[in-house]
Amino acid sequence: MFSNLEQKNSKNYPNSKHFLTFAAVMAFELTSDYVDILRLAIEERKDQFLTEQMQEHYAVDIAEIFNQLGFDEAKYLYDLLPEEVTADVLLEVTEELREELLSSLSTKEIAEQLDNMDSDDAADVINELPEEIQDEVLSHIEDIDQAGDIADLLSYEEGTAGSLMAKELVSVYAHETVNACIEEIRRQTDTVETMYTVYVLDDKERLIGLLSLKKLIVAHPLTRIEEIYDSEIMSVKVTETTDEISDIMRKYDLVVLPVVDSLGRLVGRITIDDVVDVIREEAEKDIQRMSGISDDVDSTDKIWRLSRARIPWLLVGMCGGIIGSRIIGNYETQIKIHPEMAFFIPLIGAMGGNVGVQSSAIIVQGLANNSVSGERLAPKLLKELGVGLINGLICSSLIFGYNMLISDSFHLAAVVSIALITVIMFASFLGTFVPLTLHRFKINPALATGPFVTTLNDILGITIYFLIGRILYSAV
Amino acid sequence: MFSNLEQKNSKNYPNSKHFLTFAAVMAFELTSDYVDILRLAIEERKDQFLTEQMQEHYAVDIAEIFNQLGFDEAKYLYDLLPEEVTADVLLEVTEELREELLSSLSTKEIAEQLDNMDSDDAADVINELPEEIQDEVLSHIEDIDQAGDIADLLSYEEGTAGSLMAKELVSVYAHETVNACIEEIRRQTDTVETMYTVYVLDDKERLIGLLSLKKLIVAHPLTRIEEIYDSEIMSVKVTETTDEISDIMRKYDLVVLPVVDSLGRLVGRITIDDVVDVIREEAEKDIQRMSGISDDVDSTDKIWRLSRARIPWLLVGMCGGIIGSRIIGNYETQIKIHPEMAFFIPLIGAMGGNVGVQSSAIIVQGLANNSVSGERLAPKLLKELGVGLINGLICSSLIFGYNMLISDSFHLAAVVSIALITVIMFASFLGTFVPLTLHRFKINPALATGPFVTTLNDILGITIYFLIGRILYSAV
Repeated sequence: MFSNLEQKNSKNYPNSKHFLTFAAVMAFELTSDYVDILRLAIEERKDQFLTEQMQEHYAVDIAEIFNQLGFDEAKYLYDLLPEEVTADVLLEVTEELREELLSSLSTKEIAEQLDNMDSDDAADVINELPEEIQDEVLSHIEDIDQAGDIADLLSYEEGTAGSLMAKELVSVYAHETVNACIEEIRRQTDTVETMYTVYVLDDKERLIGLLSLKKLIVAHPLTRIEEIYDSEIMSVKVTETTDEISDIMRKYDLVVLPVVDSLGRLVGRITIDDVVDVIREEAEKDIQRMSGISDDVDSTDKIWRLSRARIPWLLVGMCGGIIGSRIIGNYETQIKIHPEMAFFIPLIGAMGGNVGVQSSAIIVQGLANNSVSGERLAPKLLKELGVGLINGLICSSLIFGYNMLISDSFHLAAVVSIALITVIMFASFLGTFVPLTLHRFKINPALATGPFVTTLNDILGITIYFLIGRILYSAV
Repeated sequence: MFSNLEQKNSKNYPNSKHFLTFAAVMAFELTSDYVDILRLAIEERKDQFLTEQMQEHYAVDIAEIFNQLGFDEAKYLYDLLPEEVTADVLLEVTEELREELLSSLSTKEIAEQLDNMDSDDAADVINELPEEIQDEVLSHIEDIDQAGDIADLLSYEEGTAGSLMAKELVSVYAHETVNACIEEIRRQTDTVETMYTVYVLDDKERLIGLLSLKKLIVAHPLTRIEEIYDSEIMSVKVTETTDEISDIMRKYDLVVLPVVDSLGRLVGRITIDDVVDVIREEAEKDIQRMSGISDDVDSTDKIWRLSRARIPWLLVGMCGGIIGSRIIGNYETQIKIHPEMAFFIPLIGAMGGNVGVQSSAIIVQGLANNSVSGERLAPKLLKELGVGLINGLICSSLIFGYNMLISDSFHLAAVVSIALITVIMFASFLGTFVPLTLHRFKINPALATGPFVTTLNDILGITIYFLIGRILYSAV
């Protein structure tokens, strides 16, 4: 969410001496020993040492250090930081710590921090503040343009292009000259830190193209923009979803994507660093969904939040288990006669679950990167059934051999093997069919690779197993 | 892997008329109806219609269409494409189709395609070619600089900065003037399509800083570079791993990252679009690992490859099932007397598995985004045990109530409930402990969130369940 895309989190320190001679700056790696050293120094109030240490790091690294400290320690370090760095550090710490740090500041101090942020970051921070102080903070922002931009951005809905974009950009009218354009860049050089492209507008403020800085540099100063600009420009509406935006930027390898309103007027731009975060968050959410965690949580959250995020799918699993118990309950007398049937309940259940998860993971991934189209079900199902048949044959042959070796019951060996291959085939089918069907009904198929498919296959597996057992044993 | 980061996959067509008036180009969405129309047109050899249609799309969209066609159809369309587009389309189709298309070309024709690619993309393609023709293709490349760059890149190991970087960049010596720098940019404007930054070198070709194009535009033409360049520049060694690089670029929000050799000399640069692909691939691999798929496969792979990637973890699951069967086997007489014990085997197994996967997913995710440090085990284990206790109490109370309602066996109800909360606590512990331990021994913890933890918890659950059953029932 930073601003200077080329070399971000600029240290802004005059005396970072280790840069003077040789520039191969390496990334910082935080160790717990280093955190302990800082802790001790904070305890002993060694301000000079701490200030020197902080000067060695980028804002994002300082934030990482803060995340390892208690609030009082972090606050002590925060107060030692020079003003140019605090806004960047605030943006990079965990939401929890940011909330604590901000609540220790007056509304005027918060406004000063927001003044040093890009408009999109500032709007995000305001959104996190308690509602009753939001307007007050906004009124304290000195730069009126910045305050107006932030207020604009606050009006867009979460999860849309409007919520992701920043207002900082450079635009020119098509009828202007290269010289005028360079003047405009010079004028804006402080507010717009990241700049790769100048956007070209018609007289009605509508986006009609772009001009790369490279082209601007090599062009004659008196050339008119309309003679050299590139009219092929991809843009998104301000209401477009962030998922769609991350797909577009990834697919077309874009670094910046302009955002237009419904009249085609340029209102902002989205940069790749924000989208990289979206891509990662999406991947994390998918992994959580697959693992049966319903809310977006991480390990630093409070215990009760972590519990609440996990209990829904546990209850689904429990319902599955109860249904399973009723199904097995129907075979009570059979179990009394053939208790060895019970031995393989876990095996049948586990294999059904594993195969189902494997099948659905492949399909969900294919849907996510568009290599599976969601149409033409039959060939995909056939392929999965083919895979299921091969793996089912391998597994059921092995378990048949094992059972013949270990016990002398041909019947048990036959029941387990036949049930196993049947369960694997069914699980392959369900693992493919369920996510494709969810996708068709516009439900996120990642939901299906998790506890849902596992629970379904558990129940199905037990049903098939005992059914086959009854048939084969009664055929004796 | 394209070259123009601002607006990529440029259509390069003179007559894409829908751009002339209004520039809000929207992303292309491929439908199966459209593919059918193209199929029919290919069958009927409607070359003019097809050429017109292809002119409407970006290279990456044409590649998406190709991926939906058979090889003969794709090849027919490929031959209709103008030369400027074919290289870009080749880069974007699936590896399988690219192999087929390339094998239909002569080594000279392949060399022509490589001449139109960025050096990093060209090196990737050469790496995919059969070894016996690689040298021949390289010798046919007309641009000697390009051929040299590709040969250089081929010498770096897979998975390192060297394998990810491109050679196209603009650099100047610190003692040169702004004017000389602009001249250099003008000279290189054809080869280096993406340019946000000019790299600054000392007399020994060592990277000492950068100059943004913005700064270059607003600077006086006779200023020396050394007076205005920015000496704060992050770089990586050519041997750095791609994982590390994606972490660095994401953390520091970089769009380009220069690569230096062991003497600090600039040898290439890595752009964010390549890293976005790395991030996505990593996330996909994690999801596959969690789902018990051992190789990197996708749904378009052949059946036997899909089978092979899945069978290892199925066999692990099967071993777990067999161990489970032996454990239950020890309680054969108990099951004969209390067959209702068997009813809840699936419930206990499923809950242990679900809880374990939930716990480990949270930890793996925390390790991946550095919010969990991998040190100080105790507080994390305590927290997870806390979550386990809350959810375990909820679940076991519910199942106790259910069992008291549905059956009249207080013993069964007690056994299931006590076993359930014990299993949930153990599963929480293992789900946290296993990935943290793997991480400590430098093994990818994502392995642990999958079938491994599930299998382990299955076995553990059954052991606990029957043990508690024996104790409680024998206490009657």
